[in-house]
Amino acid sequence: MEKKPHVLVIHGPNLNLLGQREPGIYGTLTLNDINNKITHSANLLGLNVECVQTNHEGVMVETIQQAVGRYDCLIINAAAFTHYSIAVRDALAAVNLPAIEVHLSNIYKREEFRHYSVLSAVVNGTICGFGVHSYILALNAAVSLVGGDRE
Amino acid sequence: MEKKPHVLVIHGPNLNLLGQREPGIYGTLTLNDINNKITHSANLLGLNVECVQTNHEGVMVETIQQAVGRYDCLIINAAAFTHYSIAVRDALAAVNLPAIEVHLSNIYKREEFRHYSVLSAVVNGTICGFGVHSYILALNAAVSLVGGDRE
Amino acid sequence: MEKKPHVLVIHGPNLNLLGQREPGIYGTLTLNDINNKITHSANLLGLNVECVQTNHEGVMVETIQQAVGRYDCLIINAAAFTHYSIAVRDALAAVNLPAIEVHLSNIYKREEFRHYSVLSAVVNGTICGFGVHSYILALNAAVSLVGGDRE
Amino acid sequence: MEKKPHVLVIHGPNLNLLGQREPGIYGTLTLNDINNKITHSANLLGLNVECVQTNHEGVMVETIQQAVGRYDCLIINAAAFTHYSIAVRDALAAVNLPAIEVHLSNIYKREEFRHYSVLSAVVNGTICGFGVHSYILALNAAVSLVGGDRE
Amino acid sequence: MEKKPHVLVIHGPNLNLLGQREPGIYGTLTLNDINNKITHSANLLGLNVECVQTNHEGVMVETIQQAVGRYDCLIINAAAFTHYSIAVRDALAAVNLPAIEVHLSNIYKREEFRHYSVLSAVVNGTICGFGVHSYILALNAAVSLVGGDRE
Amino acid sequence: MEKKPHVLVIHGPNLNLLGQREPGIYGTLTLNDINNKITHSANLLGLNVECVQTNHEGVMVETIQQAVGRYDCLIINAAAFTHYSIAVRDALAAVNLPAIEVHLSNIYKREEFRHYSVLSAVVNGTICGFGVHSYILALNAAVSLVGGDRE
Amino acid sequence: MEKKPHVLVIHGPNLNLLGQREPGIYGTLTLNDINNKITHSANLLGLNVECVQTNHEGVMVETIQQAVGRYDCLIINAAAFTHYSIAVRDALAAVNLPAIEVHLSNIYKREEFRHYSVLSAVVNGTICGFGVHSYILALNAAVSLVGGDRE
Amino acid sequence: MEKKPHVLVIHGPNLNLLGQREPGIYGTLTLNDINNKITHSANLLGLNVECVQTNHEGVMVETIQQAVGRYDCLIINAAAFTHYSIAVRDALAAVNLPAIEVHLSNIYKREEFRHYSVLSAVVNGTICGFGVHSYILALNAAVSLVGGDRE
Amino acid sequence: MEKKPHVLVIHGPNLNLLGQREPGIYGTLTLNDINNKITHSANLLGLNVECVQTNHEGVMVETIQQAVGRYDCLIINAAAFTHYSIAVRDALAAVNLPAIEVHLSNIYKREEFRHYSVLSAVVNGTICGFGVHSYILALNAAVSLVGGDRE
Amino acid sequence: MEKKPHVLVIHGPNLNLLGQREPGIYGTLTLNDINNKITHSANLLGLNVECVQTNHEGVMVETIQQAVGRYDCLIINAAAFTHYSIAVRDALAAVNLPAIEVHLSNIYKREEFRHYSVLSAVVNGTICGFGVHSYILALNAAVSLVGGDRE
Amino acid sequence: MEKKPHVLVIHGPNLNLLGQREPGIYGTLTLNDINNKITHSANLLGLNVECVQTNHEGVMVETIQQAVGRYDCLIINAAAFTHYSIAVRDALAAVNLPAIEVHLSNIYKREEFRHYSVLSAVVNGTICGFGVHSYILALNAAVSLVGGDRE
Amino acid sequence: MEKKPHVLVIHGPNLNLLGQREPGIYGTLTLNDINNKITHSANLLGLNVECVQTNHEGVMVETIQQAVGRYDCLIINAAAFTHYSIAVRDALAAVNLPAIEVHLSNIYKREEFRHYSVLSAVVNGTICGFGVHSYILALNAAVSLVGGDRE
Repeated sequence: MEKKPHVLVIHGPNLNLLGQREPGIYGTLTLNDINNKITHSANLLGLNVECVQTNHEGVMVETIQQAVGRYDCLIINAAAFTHYSIAVRDALAAVNLPAIEVHLSNIYKREEFRHYSVLSAVVNGTICGFGVHSYILALNAAVSLVGGDRE
Repeated sequence: MEKKPHVLVIHGPNLNLLGQREPGIYGTLTLNDINNKITHSANLLGLNVECVQTNHEGVMVETIQQAVGRYDCLIINAAAFTHYSIAVRDALAAVNLPAIEVHLSNIYKREEFRHYSVLSAVVNGTICGFGVHSYILALNAAVSLVGGDRE
Repeated sequence: MEKKPHVLVIHGPNLNLLGQREPGIYGTLTLNDINNKITHSANLLGLNVECVQTNHEGVMVETIQQAVGRYDCLIINAAAFTHYSIAVRDALAAVNLPAIEVHLSNIYKREEFRHYSVLSAVVNGTICGFGVHSYILALNAAVSLVGGDRE
Repeated sequence: MEKKPHVLVIHGPNLNLLGQREPGIYGTLTLNDINNKITHSANLLGLNVECVQTNHEGVMVETIQQAVGRYDCLIINAAAFTHYSIAVRDALAAVNLPAIEVHLSNIYKREEFRHYSVLSAVVNGTICGFGVHSYILALNAAVSLVGGDRE
Repeated sequence: MEKKPHVLVIHGPNLNLLGQREPGIYGTLTLNDINNKITHSANLLGLNVECVQTNHEGVMVETIQQAVGRYDCLIINAAAFTHYSIAVRDALAAVNLPAIEVHLSNIYKREEFRHYSVLSAVVNGTICGFGVHSYILALNAAVSLVGGDRE
Repeated sequence: MEKKPHVLVIHGPNLNLLGQREPGIYGTLTLNDINNKITHSANLLGLNVECVQTNHEGVMVETIQQAVGRYDCLIINAAAFTHYSIAVRDALAAVNLPAIEVHLSNIYKREEFRHYSVLSAVVNGTICGFGVHSYILALNAAVSLVGGDRE
Repeated sequence: MEKKPHVLVIHGPNLNLLGQREPGIYGTLTLNDINNKITHSANLLGLNVECVQTNHEGVMVETIQQAVGRYDCLIINAAAFTHYSIAVRDALAAVNLPAIEVHLSNIYKREEFRHYSVLSAVVNGTICGFGVHSYILALNAAVSLVGGDRE
Repeated sequence: MEKKPHVLVIHGPNLNLLGQREPGIYGTLTLNDINNKITHSANLLGLNVECVQTNHEGVMVETIQQAVGRYDCLIINAAAFTHYSIAVRDALAAVNLPAIEVHLSNIYKREEFRHYSVLSAVVNGTICGFGVHSYILALNAAVSLVGGDRE
Repeated sequence: MEKKPHVLVIHGPNLNLLGQREPGIYGTLTLNDINNKITHSANLLGLNVECVQTNHEGVMVETIQQAVGRYDCLIINAAAFTHYSIAVRDALAAVNLPAIEVHLSNIYKREEFRHYSVLSAVVNGTICGFGVHSYILALNAAVSLVGGDRE
Repeated sequence: MEKKPHVLVIHGPNLNLLGQREPGIYGTLTLNDINNKITHSANLLGLNVECVQTNHEGVMVETIQQAVGRYDCLIINAAAFTHYSIAVRDALAAVNLPAIEVHLSNIYKREEFRHYSVLSAVVNGTICGFGVHSYILALNAAVSLVGGDRE
Repeated sequence: MEKKPHVLVIHGPNLNLLGQREPGIYGTLTLNDINNKITHSANLLGLNVECVQTNHEGVMVETIQQAVGRYDCLIINAAAFTHYSIAVRDALAAVNLPAIEVHLSNIYKREEFRHYSVLSAVVNGTICGFGVHSYILALNAAVSLVGGDRE
Repeated sequence: MEKKPHVLVIHGPNLNLLGQREPGIYGTLTLNDINNKITHSANLLGLNVECVQTNHEGVMVETIQQAVGRYDCLIINAAAFTHYSIAVRDALAAVNLPAIEVHLSNIYKREEFRHYSVLSAVVNGTICGFGVHSYILALNAAVSLVGGDRE
C-alpha cells in the first residue's frame, strides 16, 4: 500500500493575525479556518498535510531545513520575509525539496516593494492572488509535483 | 438546469511552436496536446472551455474585448506580450472579467526582463512555473472565481 | 474656391470601448458620440475630418503612412501605444505631417508608466486631460497649424 | 444678465523677455503682443481675462492663492518653475480652481530636464507646443471647464 | 532673573491657507489658530515665541539669517521648500542655531517626492505627522535643546 | 475614575548596549537610565508605561501583536530593523494602534542607508534626533494621540 | 548538384518608406532599389534570396516561424521592433536558424533608446551603420554561417 | 578713448554671511572684503565692475535680465541656486551675455548634490575651488572674453 | 605565562547544512569537519577558538554582544545575513572588537545580490573564496590583529 | 595606375592570446592565423592591409593618430578598451578616418558590461559575432567606405 | 634672491593633435602654440614652467609622481583620462602637490559622460571652458596657490 | 626532489609610493619593506616568490600573460586598476592561473567607487583590509591553492 505524500504548509509572520488584520486585503477567515480548509482539501487530494506558522525568520529557516526526509513538498507563504529574507531563500535552495510560493493577495496590486520576491527563483512555481484558494491550488500543484517525482 | 461557466484560454505569441521550441524550458507537449488536456480537465470541473492562440497583439486585444458577454472568465498566457503590451493590459482592465495570468515556466529563473509583468496588476491572480499544469490550476482557480460570483 | 484642409483623427487600442470602459476615467460617451462631436466641430471650423480607430499597431503605422498626400494634419490619441510603440513614432517622424498628440484623461494623474510618451518628441504639440474636449482643442490647433502652412 | 467667467493667465520667469529670448524656440512676438492676442481671443470667447507675469516664485504662489473668489479659471505657463517649484504645485492644489498648464514650445523636444513637470498632476490638463496658440487653445479649454461648472 | 529663551517659528509657503487647503490632510485649524496654540504652549513652557509665515524662499533665507543674536532656537516647517530649497538649507547651516524641522502631516504617507527633505541633515531633529501638535512637541524639544545650551 | 492610558515603549536591536556603544552618536546613558527617565516622565504625564527591549525581529513582531487590548499606544525605536524589517511594518499595520517612531540620533546625518525607514508610512508620526528626549517627546505625542481617541 | 542556400531578408516597420523617410539618416534608395541590390549580390554569392517587409509585429513573428524548413538563414532589420519586441526575439530564439541583425544607420549615433536591441542576444551577429551595404555584408556573413553548417 | 568693459559680479544666497558662515569652508573674509578685492583687481585689469548680492531667486533672474545693454560680461556665484534654479539658467541663456560661473569652495569635495550645476551648460566657463581668488581669475577670464569680442 | 588570545568563530544561517547543501558551491565537508579543522589550526597558531552556528539573527546579534570581555577577536561568516542584516552590522560596530568577515565561496561569481555586504565597512578586513581555507586564513589574520594589539 | 587603398587592422589587449584564451568564446585560431586570413582576403579585395596588436592603450591611441595620411580606413577590435577607453574614442574622433568596429564574439551574449561600447558612436559602423569572419566582413565594408570616397 | 616657483603643465591624450582635431571644439592653435603662450605668460607671472604631453596613462601617473621635489604646482588637462583614470587620481592624491584641473572646452556642453571628472575631488580647483586661456588662468591660480604656501 | 611552487606578486599603480602616500590609509612601510616581508614569509612557506610593480596597465596585462608556464599562482593588488581595467580582468581570465586579489586597506571603508572590483569575478578569492599582512595571508592562500592543484 502506497504511502500518502506529506506536504508541509508554512505560514510566515503576522499570518497568525488573519481575520483580524486588514480584512479588506486578507479576508475574514482566521488562520485556523484556513488550516481547516487546507486539511480538508488535502484529504480529498490524498495528501497528508501539516500546517505551521511562525513570526521568526530563524524558526522558518529551521522548519525548512528539518523538512528534509519528513516531507515531500513545501507550500510556503513567507509573508513579509518574501521580500528580504535571503536566509529563507538559502534554506529553500539548500533542502532542494519541491516548493510552491503562495500569496493570499495579489501582491502586484499593492506597494511597490511587495512586487519583488527573493524566493521566486528558488521555488518550482508561484500562485498569488486567490485568497485562501491560493493554498488549495498549491495543494493541487503539489499533487502534480510530488506525483511527478514518485512515478 | 444551471448553465456551465464559460472560460476562454488565450495563448500568446510563439506558443503555437510548443513542443518544438526550447523543450528544455517549455516541455515536449504541443499546443494541441495542451489544449486537449485543458479541455479534458475543464470537463471534469464542469466548465465549458475554448482555447485560442495568436501571435498578433491586436488580435489578442480584440479577443479580450469580445469575451464580454460570452465568457465568464479569462485564462491568459500572454507570453512575450506579458512584458510590454500595455494595450493588452488596458483591454483586460476595460472588460473587467475575472482573469488569471498563467506562465508555463518559472519566469523568475529566466532573463531579468521576464521578471516583470505589465499584466499582473489588472488580473485576479497569477500562476507560474508548473508547466502545462499551470493551466489546470488556473481552471481550478476559475471555478473558485466564477463560482464565487455565481453563489 | 479654396479646398478645406483634411484632418485625420486616429484613435488607438481599446478606445472602441469608450463609454463602457472605466467611465470614472474616460467618461460615458461612446466613440461614436465622440466622432460625431469631432465632425460637428470640424464643420464649424471649416475642416474636413475623418476618424478611424484600430487596436492593431501595424494598422496604425500604415494609416499614418497612407495619410501622406491625403491629409493635411494628423490628430492622434495612440492610447496604450503612446508609451511603447516606437513603430508608431517612426511612422509619425517619417511622414512629416503636422501632428497633434491627444489624451482624454490627464495621464499625469494615473500610473507612472503613463507619464512617459514615446511620441511627444515627434509631434507638433500635445493636449491632454480635457476629456472629449481634448479632440476639439486639437481641431483648433490643427486650424492654426495647417492654416500657418497654407498662407 | 450672466456674468462673464474670469480667467487669470500667469506667465512665469523670463517670459517677459519673449521676442528677444531665443526666437528660434519661442518666436518673435513680445509678451505684450501675446497678451493682446489673448485678450482679443478672450473677448471673442466671452471671457474676461487678466494677464500677469512674474519672475518670483513667491509672487506666483500668492497670485495663485489670491485668485480664489476672483477668478474662475487659471491658465499657467510656469516656465522654469514647471520643473521644480513644489511651492507652485502646492498653491495650485490648495486653491482647487480649474487650471490649465501651458507651454509655448514642445518641451519634449528640448533638454531632458524639461520633460518632467511637477505641476501636471494637479492641473486639469496640459497644452504644449503650439507657440502663442497654446494660450488660445487654453482659453477654449477654459470655456469648456468653466462652462461645465456653470451649467 | 533669567531671560526666557526666544524661539522663532517659521511657517513656509501655502501654510497661510491652513484651514482652507486640503483639510483632509492638514486639518481645519487656520494658521492663526495654530499660532495661538503655539503661543499658549510656549507661555506654559517658559518660552518667548514669535511666529512668521512666508511664501518667498528669499524671505525665509533672510528670516533665518537675521535670527542670529535674536533667537535661541528655530522651529521650521518649510513646507514645499523642504524638498528642494538648498538656499534654506545653507541658511540653516550657516546660522548654526539649534533648529527643529516640523511637518503637520506624515510626509511618508504622501507622494514619493515628499519623503525626502534637503533640510534634515542640518537640523538637530525632526518631528512629523502629529498635526498642530507637531509644533507643540517642537516647543518641548526646544526647551531641551536651549536648556541644554544654557546650563 | 478614569483608567490611565497604557503606553508600550519598544527598543530594538543593540539598544541594550546604550551607554557603551558609540557614545559619540548615542550618548552615555544606559538603557536603564533611559527607561527610568521615560517612566518618570510618563508618571508626570499621567501615563502608564512599560519598556521592553529585544534583539529578535520575531519577538518584536509578537510584542506588537500582543499589544492589542493591553496598550493604547506604541512608541517604537526599531533601531536597525527600521531600515529593512517589513515583518515589523506589517505587524504595526495589522494591530492598528496609535504608534510613534522614535530615533535617538538624527538618522539623516548618518550613512545613507539609514535615511530610509520602512516603518514611517504605517505609524502616526516620527520623532528623531533629540537623544533620550526623543522618547519624552513621544510620550507627549502619545498623550495627544490617545487623548484624541478617548475624548 | 548542390542546392543553393536559401536566405530570407526581413525588413521591419516603416522601411517601406525608404527613400522618402528622413534621407539624411537612411539615404535616397527605395526599398525596391535595395531589394534589387540584395538580389544582385545574392546571385553573385550563390545564394537564393527572398525579401519581405512588414509593419505588423505579428506578421514578422509568423514570417520567422514559417522560415523553418524553407530557409537556411535569416537576415533581419527589425527597425523599431528592435528595441521592444520580445515577441520577435522569442520567435528568433524558437526557430533556432542562423540569423543576422542588420541596421542601415549607426544606431549608436541616434537617440539613446535606439542603442539597445532586445534581439542581439539571440542572433549570431550584428552589422550596423553601412547603409544598404549592411545588407550586402550580411549576405557575406550568411555565406560563412550557412556554409559552415553545410560542410 | 575706448570705454572700459563693464562687468557685473552676482553673489547668490547666503554669501552675505561670508566671514561668519562655516569659515572652514569659505574662509574668514567678509563679502565686503571680497568686493573690495574684486574692485581693486578690476581696476588693475582695466575693467569697470559692480558687485551685487541677493538671497532672492527672482531678484537674481531680473538682475541678469537687466544686465543687457549695461554690462559686457557676467560673473556669477549662484551659491545654492547653482544646483536647482532653472529660472536662473533660463535667464543666463536668454540674455546671451558672456558669463562665468564661479565657486569659492571646491564643490567636488562637498556633498554629492553640490557636484551638479544646472548653470554650467549655459555659461562660457567655470572656475571653482580657489577661494576669493576664484573671482579674480574670473575677472581675468572676463578680460579675455570681452576683449575677444572687441578686437 | 601569557594567556592565549580567544577567538570566536560565528557561522550564520544554513551553514549547519554544509556538506549536504549545494556541494558544487560549498564543498563536501560538514560544519563539524570544518570546526575540527579550525580548532586544529588554531592550536597550531596558539589561539583558543570557539565555534558557534545560528540560524537566528537575534542570536547572532547577542553572540556578538556577549563576546565583549570574553573574546579578543571575531571571525564571522554571516552567510545570508551578510547582505541585509543591519542589526548584525550594528552589533559588530558596537562591540568594537577586531573582526574578520569570511566567505567560503567567491561571492562575486554568484548572484548579483551577493556582491554587496552590509558588514564589510565595520570589520577590519574580509577574506572570501578559499573554501574552508578562508577560515584558516582568518585565524592567521586574527593572530596579526590580536598580536598587534597585544605587543 | 590607381593606388590600392591602405587599411590598418588594430587588435586590442589580450588578442595576442587568441587560440589559447577561452576557445569556447574565441575559437582555436591564433592571431597569426587570423592575420593571414585577413591578408589573404584583403588581396582578393584589392586592398593593402597591415595588422597590429597592442596591449597598451597609449600605443593604440598613437597608432590611430599616426594612421592619418598613411591609411585610408581603420578596422578596430579594441577588445577590453571597447568598454571604457575614452582616450581611444577621442583618437578615433580626432583622426576622422573611416573606421569599423569589430568583435569576434557576440558581445550581447556575454557579461552585461560588454554590451556597451564607448567607441560605437564615433565609427562608421560595427560588425560583431561572426568570429574571424567579422574581420573579413569589415574588409568588405572598407571597400565600400573607401571606394565611396574614391569614386 | 628668491627662487621662482616651478610649475608643471601636463597635457593628456590626443592633445598633441590640437589644431588638427575638431577645431570647432578645440580651436586652431597647435599644442606648440599653446605651450608658447603658456611659457610667455609664465614668464610675465614670475613662474618657471615646463610643459609635457602624453597619451599613456602610466606615463602621466609617473610624471605626477616624479614632480615631487621638482615642482611646486601641477596644472593638468587630463583630457579623456579625466573621466575614468583612477590611477591618475590616486597619483594626484598621493603626491599632495597643489594641483589645478584645466579643460579647454566647456565639458558641460558636451556628451554627458564628459560632465563627470574623477579628478576634481583631489585637486585644489578647476578651470574649464576658456580655450587656451584656461591654462593662463591656471597659471594665475598657481601664483596664488604657491605664493600662499610660500609666504 | 619536488620543485617549489612559483608565485608572482603584482603591485599596481602608485604602490611604488607606499610609505610616502597617505600613511593614514596605507601605513609607513615602503614597497621595498613589503617585498622583503613577502619574500621572508614565502621562504617560510616553501614558496618561490617574485614581486613586480607597474604603473602601466599594458605592462600589467603582459606581466599576467607571460606568467603562464613560469608561475603557479598570481597574487595581485591592482590598486586603481581594480575598479575599471577590463583589460587586466581579461588577462586574468585568459591565463587561467590560480589568482588572489589583495588590498592593503579595507576598500569598503573608502570612497564608494572603490567598493566595486572588476577583477573579483575572475580570481579564486579576495583578501582585503589587513595592511601588509594581506599579502602574507595571500601567500598562505597560494599554498592551499597550488598545493590543491599539485596533489
